[in-house]
Amino acid sequence: MRPDERQTESMAAGFRARFPGHDFAVASPARLEDLTLPPPRLHPPAPLAAAFSDDPYDRAGHTYGKSYRDVVRGFRGQLDHPPDLVAFPSDESTVSAILDWATSADVLVVPYGGGSSVVGGVECPDQGHTGVVSMDLGRLNQVLEVDRTSRAARIQAGILGPALEDTLRPQGLTLRHFPQSFEFSSLGGWLATRSGGHYATARTHIDDFTESIRAVTPAGIYESRRLPGSGAGPSPDRLLLGSEGILGVITEAWMRLQDRPRWRASAGVRFTRYADAVSATRAVVQAGLDPTNCRLLDETEAAMSAGSGGGVSLLVLGFESADHPVDVPMARALELCADHGGTCPEGPRSSGPAPADAGPGSGSPAATSAPAVPSGPAGAADAVGAWRNAFIRAPYGRDALVAMSMIVETFETACTWDRFEALHAGVTEAVTRALGQVCGDGWITCRFTHVYPDGPAPYFSVLGPGRPGSEITQWDEVKAAAAEAILTHGGTITHHHAVGRDHRPWYDRQRPELFGRALRAAKAGLDPAGILNPGVLIDP
Amino acid sequence: MRPDERQTESMAAGFRARFPGHDFAVASPARLEDLTLPPPRLHPPAPLAAAFSDDPYDRAGHTYGKSYRDVVRGFRGQLDHPPDLVAFPSDESTVSAILDWATSADVLVVPYGGGSSVVGGVECPDQGHTGVVSMDLGRLNQVLEVDRTSRAARIQAGILGPALEDTLRPQGLTLRHFPQSFEFSSLGGWLATRSGGHYATARTHIDDFTESIRAVTPAGIYESRRLPGSGAGPSPDRLLLGSEGILGVITEAWMRLQDRPRWRASAGVRFTRYADAVSATRAVVQAGLDPTNCRLLDETEAAMSAGSGGGVSLLVLGFESADHPVDVPMARALELCADHGGTCPEGPRSSGPAPADAGPGSGSPAATSAPAVPSGPAGAADAVGAWRNAFIRAPYGRDALVAMSMIVETFETACTWDRFEALHAGVTEAVTRALGQVCGDGWITCRFTHVYPDGPAPYFSVLGPGRPGSEITQWDEVKAAAAEAILTHGGTITHHHAVGRDHRPWYDRQRPELFGRALRAAKAGLDPAGILNPGVLIDP
Repeated sequence: MRPDERQTESMAAGFRARFPGHDFAVASPARLEDLTLPPPRLHPPAPLAAAFSDDPYDRAGHTYGKSYRDVVRGFRGQLDHPPDLVAFPSDESTVSAILDWATSADVLVVPYGGGSSVVGGVECPDQGHTGVVSMDLGRLNQVLEVDRTSRAARIQAGILGPALEDTLRPQGLTLRHFPQSFEFSSLGGWLATRSGGHYATARTHIDDFTESIRAVTPAGIYESRRLPGSGAGPSPDRLLLGSEGILGVITEAWMRLQDRPRWRASAGVRFTRYADAVSATRAVVQAGLDPTNCRLLDETEAAMSAGSGGGVSLLVLGFESADHPVDVPMARALELCADHGGTCPEGPRSSGPAPADAGPGSGSPAATSAPAVPSGPAGAADAVGAWRNAFIRAPYGRDALVAMSMIVETFETACTWDRFEALHAGVTEAVTRALGQVCGDGWITCRFTHVYPDGPAPYFSVLGPGRPGSEITQWDEVKAAAAEAILTHGGTITHHHAVGRDHRPWYDRQRPELFGRALRAAKAGLDPAGILNPGVLIDP
Repeated sequence: MRPDERQTESMAAGFRARFPGHDFAVASPARLEDLTLPPPRLHPPAPLAAAFSDDPYDRAGHTYGKSYRDVVRGFRGQLDHPPDLVAFPSDESTVSAILDWATSADVLVVPYGGGSSVVGGVECPDQGHTGVVSMDLGRLNQVLEVDRTSRAARIQAGILGPALEDTLRPQGLTLRHFPQSFEFSSLGGWLATRSGGHYATARTHIDDFTESIRAVTPAGIYESRRLPGSGAGPSPDRLLLGSEGILGVITEAWMRLQDRPRWRASAGVRFTRYADAVSATRAVVQAGLDPTNCRLLDETEAAMSAGSGGGVSLLVLGFESADHPVDVPMARALELCADHGGTCPEGPRSSGPAPADAGPGSGSPAATSAPAVPSGPAGAADAVGAWRNAFIRAPYGRDALVAMSMIVETFETACTWDRFEALHAGVTEAVTRALGQVCGDGWITCRFTHVYPDGPAPYFSVLGPGRPGSEITQWDEVKAAAAEAILTHGGTITHHHAVGRDHRPWYDRQRPELFGRALRAAKAGLDPAGILNPGVLIDP
């Protein structure tokens, strides 16, 4: 799905027309064989040697996550702080043994799931310790147990999205958690970062699908009881959810599953005024309709990624159920949209059970994370399909943009409805100004990825022509302006991208100071030597 | 609503027939004027004197919560460890000042909301400190701010349920959180104990309605940012939710509100086999229908509190919406019940908007926490109404039962569906055996108060003839047998009654040991002198 050379050159030509004065020369990425990594400072302990690798390819591959900064540095071959070793434990006792060794040898451990962090969460700190191990959980990748009655499964943390869904599909079950990183991210990573998934409303984060978690900490095993709900003290799971590897290494979890959906309805609703589209979205979610998909694309985003033709905002609505038709809630949602000036001349598309529905081909995010869009005449439904395709292709296209020094990144937040208008205006203005200052030009677009009765989760995409060699510092300035505007206007520094190292300055201001104190104390109890992912969430 | 003397005597006569050999003599409660409380060991600091009371009535009234053990001890006038003083702060700065004084003077502070704890959560510990203050938040009882756009309000923690709903009603809004203690419990208490409320599915605990929390800790103010959702590290709110007063005194919160419901549907479905009723309930909740009410009463409970006539289990179903009719999901739920042998010959009752709907009389739990039941011919709908009335009357009837030495108490849990049959059998057997041993007779009934796709929250009611003067030790034996069976069969020691002091032995076994360590560390950070509610959740 990566663009080929011809497609890349065609993109560059398009940008040259749009951004005169930038040449968008397509550079070539550094070759792995040309890289010179600093030699490893560590040797693995002999009894555990089989679990470790010091192969340059493994070390280079575990140096960064997948943020724009990471991709640029990887493209340039700038790998200053690779892990000294990569560990690939294939069972929990090896995880424990590695943490024991690391604690005694003053070695830092950075837990690594799929490596798709966009916030510096898997980056290796360069601090005064003996060395750093990136612990890749990829060999803990099994579904260990399925409880069909309760619709739950015990799953190892290192499994990636597609393998997980492939395993559950024959039983008619699905976790139905499809972050944009689905193909490249792991269950443990989703849990550690409070990943945002498939459902646009009601059950948005992986948190909502978590029945219990098991983790290895330097102080021992931390395992919660498998329960559908509990009121016994503060939730033990909620301390691990979002802990980003600083408290322990998540090794497995009991996850709540769904029956695979059989009924679907989708619609694309157009609005000529963005404010009306926002009000309509709020009305739909406050009506308690809980659509599966409820993504509002602003004018630019609707034009760029859904081919709307410009001048309209597009609300992509979807409902689905494994049990019953969903035409009634869709009809009510469209009524509410119409009350706010939304039009959907084609009407909604709906589909019911078909023989192929539970078949092996229906589990990919392409088939299921966006609403079903049957082929048909041009119109809003096609816009929905176009948006879905753009959503899936986005991560692939980025490498080509990086090659031509285009700055391209996203950031996201959430705020209450009363603050959204000011936040949207403030962020747009701050980013546009920063882009003007550092790039001379560029654009910012907004969509809602998730919506709640009390507020939306806006997701911004930024694009600006960079100067070869300066892209990261340019982006850092834009990002700082965006983050400052988000905090000023009452948003969160992240709704589902996590904190990592990159969001620390703003997270530190957002987080209650006394929660930081409590978290530092909890970490000292579970990781007394402070070996786990230092610099993430709190200071070492 | 308390039974009068004639009604009480009639109850006793009924019990004499059912439990021969017990005389059920109706005793009189101790009179407050006859009580001799130990003298207070403390004097309030002069600048704060106006916030304190050493009145015996205040001290006696803050000695216990509302568990069976508490009511028996109160009835007997056995008030061995009253608080030395009761504080009634009327602003947050006074809360802070009291905590500062308590920290410096080695005085324990027990936060007190409505005093409806059934787990010893507001009881005063008798330990080697200078004295104990019960801090009653009842004067912090205002709705400070309403955000109609986001449907949220900033509310002080000491407000009781009815006052809160009365304040929101004129704006057409409701928190719609109706625990059985609604009239006698406070927002702060609900937050501190993870109270279970109105919704039987999906959004069951107060946690789900919490946008942000503000608390005073001995280390300072702990306040989270108001957000509809966030993925920025472990949730700061979730550490306070369920903290039961050991980390800080919750002073206010932004809570998510609802529009007041206008459409309702209710039905009572009868099953001749309990196992079928359980399967049907599971099918309804796994279908994603999210009924507002979904309470399964076993045969005894259906006969006793819903007048079902015996021999049938009763599933009480309710749907409601502020936005749209709910007949379609009700019809689908009844289809699923019919698939499992459930019958509802009268069909569902539904109602839509009426002029009186948003009027001032519709906010009480009697009007709203159970489904609307229009008058009509005898049948399942009447059983639903009877059950609703029994639910509301239950707390009032208990005092009369205590007067005649009847042991009457409830306990509750939650477990995954795969474990429910064994848990239900195990708990019933253990409690029946214990009742036989300590009371010679008695009964246990079960209903589901909440249900989840992955399991139910069973709620058990126990009744047995006690020996005057020995009721508490008798109950303690029954409770220990019940708790042991719950833990053995994979349940939680509490789904929504909290841990307090009474559930400690089992909570300590259920909770991950390392979460206990983290919680103790967090408490040491926020309450270094250990003055807040020692003995609750963790050891001092």
